[in-house]
Amino acid sequence: MKISFKWALLLGLLISTLNLHAQDEEKDAFDIRKIYDIALTEGQCYDWLTYLTKRVGPRLAGSAGAAAAVEYGKQMFDTLGFDKVYLQECMVPHWERGAPEIVRIVNSETMGSVTLNALALGYSGATPKGGLTAEVIECKGLDALTQLSEEEVRGKIVFFSEPMDPTQVNTFAAYGAAVGQRTRGPREAAKKGAVGAIVRSMTLKLDDEPHSGVTIFDEGQEPIPALAISTEAAELLGTILEREPVRMYLNTTCQRMSDKVSYNVVGEITGSTHPDEIILVGGHLDSWDVNEGAHDDGAGCVQSLDVIYILKKFGWTPKRTIRCVWFMNEENGQAGAIKYAETSNAIPENHIAAVESDAGGFTPRGFSTEADESVYIDKLRIAKAWESLLSPYGIVIQSGGGSGADIRRLRPQKGLLFGLRPDSQRYFDFHHARNDVLENVNERELRLGAAAMSSLVFLIDKYGLDIPKKK
Amino acid sequence: MKISFKWALLLGLLISTLNLHAQDEEKDAFDIRKIYDIALTEGQCYDWLTYLTKRVGPRLAGSAGAAAAVEYGKQMFDTLGFDKVYLQECMVPHWERGAPEIVRIVNSETMGSVTLNALALGYSGATPKGGLTAEVIECKGLDALTQLSEEEVRGKIVFFSEPMDPTQVNTFAAYGAAVGQRTRGPREAAKKGAVGAIVRSMTLKLDDEPHSGVTIFDEGQEPIPALAISTEAAELLGTILEREPVRMYLNTTCQRMSDKVSYNVVGEITGSTHPDEIILVGGHLDSWDVNEGAHDDGAGCVQSLDVIYILKKFGWTPKRTIRCVWFMNEENGQAGAIKYAETSNAIPENHIAAVESDAGGFTPRGFSTEADESVYIDKLRIAKAWESLLSPYGIVIQSGGGSGADIRRLRPQKGLLFGLRPDSQRYFDFHHARNDVLENVNERELRLGAAAMSSLVFLIDKYGLDIPKKK
Repeated sequence: MKISFKWALLLGLLISTLNLHAQDEEKDAFDIRKIYDIALTEGQCYDWLTYLTKRVGPRLAGSAGAAAAVEYGKQMFDTLGFDKVYLQECMVPHWERGAPEIVRIVNSETMGSVTLNALALGYSGATPKGGLTAEVIECKGLDALTQLSEEEVRGKIVFFSEPMDPTQVNTFAAYGAAVGQRTRGPREAAKKGAVGAIVRSMTLKLDDEPHSGVTIFDEGQEPIPALAISTEAAELLGTILEREPVRMYLNTTCQRMSDKVSYNVVGEITGSTHPDEIILVGGHLDSWDVNEGAHDDGAGCVQSLDVIYILKKFGWTPKRTIRCVWFMNEENGQAGAIKYAETSNAIPENHIAAVESDAGGFTPRGFSTEADESVYIDKLRIAKAWESLLSPYGIVIQSGGGSGADIRRLRPQKGLLFGLRPDSQRYFDFHHARNDVLENVNERELRLGAAAMSSLVFLIDKYGLDIPKKK
Repeated sequence: MKISFKWALLLGLLISTLNLHAQDEEKDAFDIRKIYDIALTEGQCYDWLTYLTKRVGPRLAGSAGAAAAVEYGKQMFDTLGFDKVYLQECMVPHWERGAPEIVRIVNSETMGSVTLNALALGYSGATPKGGLTAEVIECKGLDALTQLSEEEVRGKIVFFSEPMDPTQVNTFAAYGAAVGQRTRGPREAAKKGAVGAIVRSMTLKLDDEPHSGVTIFDEGQEPIPALAISTEAAELLGTILEREPVRMYLNTTCQRMSDKVSYNVVGEITGSTHPDEIILVGGHLDSWDVNEGAHDDGAGCVQSLDVIYILKKFGWTPKRTIRCVWFMNEENGQAGAIKYAETSNAIPENHIAAVESDAGGFTPRGFSTEADESVYIDKLRIAKAWESLLSPYGIVIQSGGGSGADIRRLRPQKGLLFGLRPDSQRYFDFHHARNDVLENVNERELRLGAAAMSSLVFLIDKYGLDIPKKK
């Protein structure tokens, strides 16, 4: 236990140096209890999510659904008494899935012809009209492709079959390790002459739900048809491939069209004493086209907006500017995040903190953090000092772990960036699949996320994140 | 932050005193990683739960389902290479629900006649043949009843309407504060002459699922009809009662019959060097009659048995005796737990530890603890020393919090008693309701519970829980 002892002492020393503010800990504990009470009884996030999922529905950037979501967002923001509400224009890609995909194993000796449950990946190309048939070659992950010659790959459909690692307790780590075969696999396969790509769905669950997601081709490269098949379908295909060569038939009519105008939805309460210090809370408004985007990332949007609602109910007058942003196009391009960061960094604005929720509406366990290296340790210390106020609610302030795809580009402003980290076990059961719907969101778990975010934003606003000058 | 500093120092000091064993922390960390790997990839708990829920199904003590569950349990235990497997006989109550309950608001001016979704509580009495109709009087909780005179209550149906408190982050605390109106409300109402009792379901979710559970009458007291209605039905009834007097019609055919013989299922691996030191892992095999008992407590049973399977796969030869127990009749009498503890305490045996899982198959957050006061602090310290090995998996060793209904009677043996504590947000969505079915159990969350229990049992077996003698 020697290591533990050392760490405990270090922890003691760390906390002892954290008396950076003359905090009234008892008052803060009382206030955070009150914030939780409001979030759990009066918060609006679940009602808003119900509307966003059931009335607006799918909202891939560039789609009519996304336009409706922007309109809904603007209307909701307008009801909350922000000092400013506006839409920030950005150009987003416009890709459409087209007709339902067909993926079929053709005339296998073992199984005959079998249609597999599949979804084209975002940016997938179309097959020739009438579809294509080709032999399948399996690659257990992206690295396996590099072992194959162009001759072996040319004219074939590459099947990327690496499963996510079930032994990772944090499922995002398992996703991160396997997702390269989806995001970059089809591009690399195409470079070797493949005519199509099939990817095992990125989920730890063995079921028949295909999980979409973006795949990326180079500028000017002709995209090949690239589709995700369910994990059960991937297991079946793998089993047949062990016994005999397999030919597959693919038919998709995906197409990429001209970029479209879309928007981030932005609302802000101007700070009463430090209006130039901005605290951002946000999530992304776009979803995939096949689901309601309930966890990804309707949850993050409604939780962010609930922070505003809850702090108003609590009667808090922010000293700093609190800005809520629903970002557009996180899923396939991050055009909204890029536009927001470029504009803000150019002014430059001063985001002292940003908090994104984009890991699902599950029971929150804490916040991950990141910042520019020059300020990270000092700012993290300040936030860590609040942990004793948040730990009664199961919330820790993590060292590292990143923040969120929509806010990380604000690092040059040297604020502290937070990502809400909920329990990750169920996230990939639904991620980018048809079953990411309201019914799979638990109301209390969602509310607890909004409560944690509200509490953090309250503390940041009350105390700031200034590194105390050495005397 | 002064308090935090003090606590951090105390923590440092605490941990520094915990070098009670010459532990090889690196080796232990490696072993626990291996245990998790096995649990997440080869563990059997989800497959067993599938059988128990879908093939055995409901298994209230005294029912044919419970007898089938005992038989299934015995067969499963027999496949696992225990040194001993046996059934421990106990006499259990035999109560049957009878025909589907009818609960109806009669001829309300506001709503007309409305049938409410209801379930009789365990031990509820029957109505007279053909049912009964009476006026309803509302009590917001058990205390409210004490304010009413016998005259006010006589001949009426008492409606206990107190909701669980949504601001409690730990839902078990909310349940504990409200459940008295279910367990004791009907008895007290009957003493004041009530002819029936209706209880708002014990759940934080607003839906139309009634949640059963036990209600207790005194020896010799004639049980009145006592039924739970769904939270939506309770809201409706409350709303109507604000406007007008309400008469209700109740019809139930519940009956209590003679006690029956049933069994705890027990298996043990005899310890190789300390066979007299027993480490128990368990859950309860009985469920309510209206559901599959997936979370309550099929999960705990299969996780407990998986501890044996996982440690065998890991190649561990226990030094101490590890005993797995599937207890009978936790839900309405705890006859199995009482029989087990009475027998064991009389010998007396030496349970150095017992671990129960009976809070659902959700992502585990830690273990609660209890023990006889004379040994508690010292034993807790020993267990706390293992926390650094478990915290990478999100597991803490809590101070206090109790253990489990089936093991707490072992306290006289002065061992340390643990309760697995999973995330509690969803538990009462399903508790004692028809929807406590396999589909609401997440396989990974269930496996993680088995992994945490296996790791804890491994550490207890490896190091024991002896308080070091002062030199």
